[in-house]
Amino acid sequence: MTGDLTTPIDILVSEVGPRDGLQNVEAIMPIAARKAWIDAEAAAGVREIEVGSFVPAKLLPQLAGTAEVVAHARTIPGLTVAALVPNARGARDAIAAGAHKITLPLSVSETHSLRNLRRTHEQVLAEAAEIVAMIRDLPAERRPHFEGSLSTAFGCTLEGAIPDAQILRLAEALMAAGCDEVGIADTTGYADPASVKRLIRILRGAVGDEAVQGIHLHNTRGLGLANVLAALDAGLTTVDSSLGGLGGCPFAPGASGNIVTEDLVFMLEAMGLRTGIDIDALSAVREILNDNLPGEPLYGFIPDAGLPLGFRTASQPSEVEAA
Amino acid sequence: MTGDLTTPIDILVSEVGPRDGLQNVEAIMPIAARKAWIDAEAAAGVREIEVGSFVPAKLLPQLAGTAEVVAHARTIPGLTVAALVPNARGARDAIAAGAHKITLPLSVSETHSLRNLRRTHEQVLAEAAEIVAMIRDLPAERRPHFEGSLSTAFGCTLEGAIPDAQILRLAEALMAAGCDEVGIADTTGYADPASVKRLIRILRGAVGDEAVQGIHLHNTRGLGLANVLAALDAGLTTVDSSLGGLGGCPFAPGASGNIVTEDLVFMLEAMGLRTGIDIDALSAVREILNDNLPGEPLYGFIPDAGLPLGFRTASQPSEVEAA
Repeated sequence: MTGDLTTPIDILVSEVGPRDGLQNVEAIMPIAARKAWIDAEAAAGVREIEVGSFVPAKLLPQLAGTAEVVAHARTIPGLTVAALVPNARGARDAIAAGAHKITLPLSVSETHSLRNLRRTHEQVLAEAAEIVAMIRDLPAERRPHFEGSLSTAFGCTLEGAIPDAQILRLAEALMAAGCDEVGIADTTGYADPASVKRLIRILRGAVGDEAVQGIHLHNTRGLGLANVLAALDAGLTTVDSSLGGLGGCPFAPGASGNIVTEDLVFMLEAMGLRTGIDIDALSAVREILNDNLPGEPLYGFIPDAGLPLGFRTASQPSEVEAA
Repeated sequence: MTGDLTTPIDILVSEVGPRDGLQNVEAIMPIAARKAWIDAEAAAGVREIEVGSFVPAKLLPQLAGTAEVVAHARTIPGLTVAALVPNARGARDAIAAGAHKITLPLSVSETHSLRNLRRTHEQVLAEAAEIVAMIRDLPAERRPHFEGSLSTAFGCTLEGAIPDAQILRLAEALMAAGCDEVGIADTTGYADPASVKRLIRILRGAVGDEAVQGIHLHNTRGLGLANVLAALDAGLTTVDSSLGGLGGCPFAPGASGNIVTEDLVFMLEAMGLRTGIDIDALSAVREILNDNLPGEPLYGFIPDAGLPLGFRTASQPSEVEAA
């Protein structure tokens, strides 16, 4: 594995640990370690990394300095540098820092939206429109890809299931506002393979296949990878995950929140789907987390169990081909 | 949930904890507790339980007294009482005890077969033929269902991948010997969703759909439930699992071996597939394991995370229907 991020892949694994992971741990990882983490994952072949979130440092000190991290990540050839933004002000900062992709979450549960972002649906949609206007004022080569992400899409711990009509209305509103893509996030770990397929089908029916490509799943109830399989069956090509399963609001000890990148890559490669990622090199990156987040539990089966005897990945050329 | 084991189901969850679980822990669970475990799972709606293994007690003291456990389990109306047998002598004992279903493992890796059972493939097939002759001598109402189970079907830690031709030859030989069914077991945790679908397809092509209905999957590399989903997609209707993920040769701490029954039932019910099992009642059975296997780790996400807000199972009638 050369760290060449331009070879063909089948599925885009989008690493969210440096954002979603660090946001949900108490310890503060030094900026230098965050950069080293990103460097090491890119060297292992990871093509897209959500490197941080543009929220005020006083609200989320773990992610202070994200602009500096974005600027560093942009120096890695071929890497797509993504960032989360809570609002138009955050988007302005993300664009100034040079993020290639920005994601604005919109919780389909209005109760959750009010509690989490202190905004109604209409207020979040207004932020989306403002971000689109900002992007359209940029020269073409500086315009980031803009995703509106439907969080609590499979149900909310406060409201329970959200009606389809409300989810579709919000997806259509995001696209009407000018988003490039609508993401799906199982914030609460409520999804199951049937609901994943169903939601993707109706969303694609409403806003088009091209506008629905990626999903952010949690492993709160152990169905993370089964839900990934359902999402792939339904045609998605981008899956979020976190190294060591860090973050994702784990509900209980032993219950990892985010899908574990190491296990996800193993599943995909075992199935013959190219991710471009070297599993051993990826697993080795855990050392950076162990060193910089002492005592923080890391999840994942592959780092402990190892690869099957004679395992062949889809991404790496065979010895004959490489010779 | 009334404990009525005759209502319609879509997927048969076959609990193997009292055999596969107890076989792989050091502690010895008292026979009374093994009976109580079986009683409680049946009361939660579990339709089939592998209650033990007919091996000499000096080899596997954890499973001593299996005949007594079988006799007890047979008193539960509607429960299918299954038992593992290593050879014809074990089958004779299982039949005498009254098991409804007996399973003879045949490792498709001959190296593994020699190390594990000290028998070549031909010797195991000869045992199968002897068991069939024994069964055919019985009056029809006393004949158990006889499954030959292909273990290490997705690869062996000693031999790696086993050639398709060898697996198919053994499956055909088991059916030719007179087995009712050929099972598939991912003994090593090497399976992935693509290999699961593929093996089911070629096995069904060789011996017929009716002869390939069930699968025994491990969660060694975290793909257990994703592999279940693949098996269901390929048409299987019976899935083995173990309460709390007990047993299944866990490879490393934190890496459960068997699929966790609680999480499996949650996934199936969430997908609208009826198992007949009450998830809360099932999770409560963990207390019997905690009380009788002190210190033994139990796995599973659902017992910690709980059910989603407003969760509706497929199996339980709604309040309106029940009224």
